[in-house]
Amino acid sequence: MYVILVYDAGIKRDPKILKTCRQYLNWVQNSVFEGEITEGKLRQLTQRLRDIVNPAEDYILIYTIPTPRYASRMALGTPKVSEGDIL
Amino acid sequence: MYVILVYDAGIKRDPKILKTCRQYLNWVQNSVFEGEITEGKLRQLTQRLRDIVNPAEDYILIYTIPTPRYASRMALGTPKVSEGDIL
Repeated sequence: MYVILVYDAGIKRDPKILKTCRQYLNWVQNSVFEGEITEGKLRQLTQRLRDIVNPAEDYILIYTIPTPRYASRMALGTPKVSEGDIL
Repeated sequence: MYVILVYDAGIKRDPKILKTCRQYLNWVQNSVFEGEITEGKLRQLTQRLRDIVNPAEDYILIYTIPTPRYASRMALGTPKVSEGDIL
């Protein structure tokens, strides 16, 4: 399945969330990850995130789509993913 | 079609982008909008965003899916959409 994961508000605040997401997905924008992932790996990722997330401060949306063929992506502007800034 | 739109980095910086997106989509998270939209309306939205976006500073990703039945959404944490904060 294909996953689009959006993490709200300052990954800089919690590099653990960023690092965990990057182990499973591609980082496409400061707060957006996407990628092909098995159901088992997604369960694992979700569980790991649940352990990290501060429910009062963090908010993560995970969209799952059966196959990337169902989704298309368009971008406006310039991506800001910069590992140097964050890791 | 169904759209998931992610706006990177500080909607507070440009309320025009927020306002424009909200005319077409539902605001589900600080930087995330989604909703059912016609192809024509999506073209209109994209054109309006192109006129507003500062290519050097802003980055918007627009995912389109033929129907919301193809996507499912899971949330971790607490949503932070708060009109009072921003508008």
